[in-house]
Amino acid sequence: MTHYPFRLPAGPVDLTSIETNAAPGFKGGKKKGKAALFALGDELSDLQERLFAEGRSGSERRLLLVLQGMDTSGKGGVLRHTVGLVDPQGVKITSFKAPTEEERAHDFLWRIRRQLPEAGYIGVFDRSHYEDVLIARVRELATPEEIERRYTAINDFERELVDSGTTVVKCMLHISADDQKERLLARLDKPSKHWKFNPSDIDERAQWPRYREAYEIALERTNTEHAPWFVIPSGKKWYRNLAIGRLLDDTLRGMDLQWPVADFDVEVEKKRLVDEAPLS
Amino acid sequence: MTHYPFRLPAGPVDLTSIETNAAPGFKGGKKKGKAALFALGDELSDLQERLFAEGRSGSERRLLLVLQGMDTSGKGGVLRHTVGLVDPQGVKITSFKAPTEEERAHDFLWRIRRQLPEAGYIGVFDRSHYEDVLIARVRELATPEEIERRYTAINDFERELVDSGTTVVKCMLHISADDQKERLLARLDKPSKHWKFNPSDIDERAQWPRYREAYEIALERTNTEHAPWFVIPSGKKWYRNLAIGRLLDDTLRGMDLQWPVADFDVEVEKKRLVDEAPLS
Repeated sequence: MTHYPFRLPAGPVDLTSIETNAAPGFKGGKKKGKAALFALGDELSDLQERLFAEGRSGSERRLLLVLQGMDTSGKGGVLRHTVGLVDPQGVKITSFKAPTEEERAHDFLWRIRRQLPEAGYIGVFDRSHYEDVLIARVRELATPEEIERRYTAINDFERELVDSGTTVVKCMLHISADDQKERLLARLDKPSKHWKFNPSDIDERAQWPRYREAYEIALERTNTEHAPWFVIPSGKKWYRNLAIGRLLDDTLRGMDLQWPVADFDVEVEKKRLVDEAPLS
Repeated sequence: MTHYPFRLPAGPVDLTSIETNAAPGFKGGKKKGKAALFALGDELSDLQERLFAEGRSGSERRLLLVLQGMDTSGKGGVLRHTVGLVDPQGVKITSFKAPTEEERAHDFLWRIRRQLPEAGYIGVFDRSHYEDVLIARVRELATPEEIERRYTAINDFERELVDSGTTVVKCMLHISADDQKERLLARLDKPSKHWKFNPSDIDERAQWPRYREAYEIALERTNTEHAPWFVIPSGKKWYRNLAIGRLLDDTLRGMDLQWPVADFDVEVEKKRLVDEAPLS
């Protein structure tokens, strides 16, 4: 696998030290970046279809892409522009909202387990079980002891996923508070974006330093070898989409996906078709 | 809405009289056809997003695209190339397989109802409740009286969908037995396509005339004003994809989708952002 400049190294995390507007590992600007993503489309589609074909032929392998990030960091943009490059039949997208009453009556991983991708699929979580150590920590929706327990529970859960055939790719879309302010103002400027805005977005933003801290702790505690974190500089939307596209592409290539071998005699079947009786 | 040469007229249906390799309403060949579909992408994406935005803002409107057709007719190709043009976040695809034991214990529409798109979504059925009057008729999986009951039940069900805000678009991907033979042979020639082939596909093909008859009856009986059938000549894959792309585009344009109007004071929110206290 390619060296990823945005692979999070082990140890304490300081998000303020990671530039959000950088484009590590890519020479070129927006135009070249968009073209590079578009050029990835055919290969990504081919790899996704191989994964799907494998799943239909008894393989247990699948891929789970976890997208986390502050409001406006571009989880939706990645879904549209990067995940949108592959056949939608092989993709299962789940957007996790505030848990329902039924969901809250269960362990925090209950609703997550119900949305895991089946064999052969690419599953994408738009927000995820990480909210249970992010907003839950900031808004004190659980006791400190419960939050503490969850970091370990998450690592165990992801270990279990990996052991049963799921490749787990976790991306934190990293923007600064200034990036967010700019994007919220841009939303307010465009009537076609007003539906995405809610006045509570600004209230939530006031908690920015506490969210950053919650992210830093979560990233450090759950940055395992089996399910590592990638912190994607997301100030430039084209770079964010491209970086995740390349990460998916490299991850799928690393799985060495092969077309399933026919479990029937190809020549016999051809002959049956060629020799068939008239259809009437 | 544009005039559709492939809108099925009322009355008895004779599929053998409908050319599968035609390209009605389009001047040009494969290259121009592919370019025309690609050129639709931005508009389709914009319309889909408006529909989605409406759904988030209280509208009950949604779209349901039903895809039916014989094996190899290209339901998967339409999903990949046409439905794949829009944001996967706003699309819910359901592939209906042979019903499970639980599903068979219920009325045939039970499992269909569970997969209907939510408000704002484009739902796509890859096979559908029509299998219950197609394979069910050919393979005698239900009594003639039950099959007879189902045509009316389908029309009532679709009426109910339309009345509650769903625009229903039903496409039959029309190929000939010769088209299918060619495609099955092509699958057998390519190792990357073997996973899509099953020897039982050839057994099923022997029932072609009975399937054609079952389609003709189903199309005639369920070709209602509220949920009409489109018979898409699907011998040319590029034309099939383009025809359905145009049909979706025209259908969405016909819905006159508007961006939701802000339910907050835009200037007040801008001011809050600009004047905010430092985030620390």
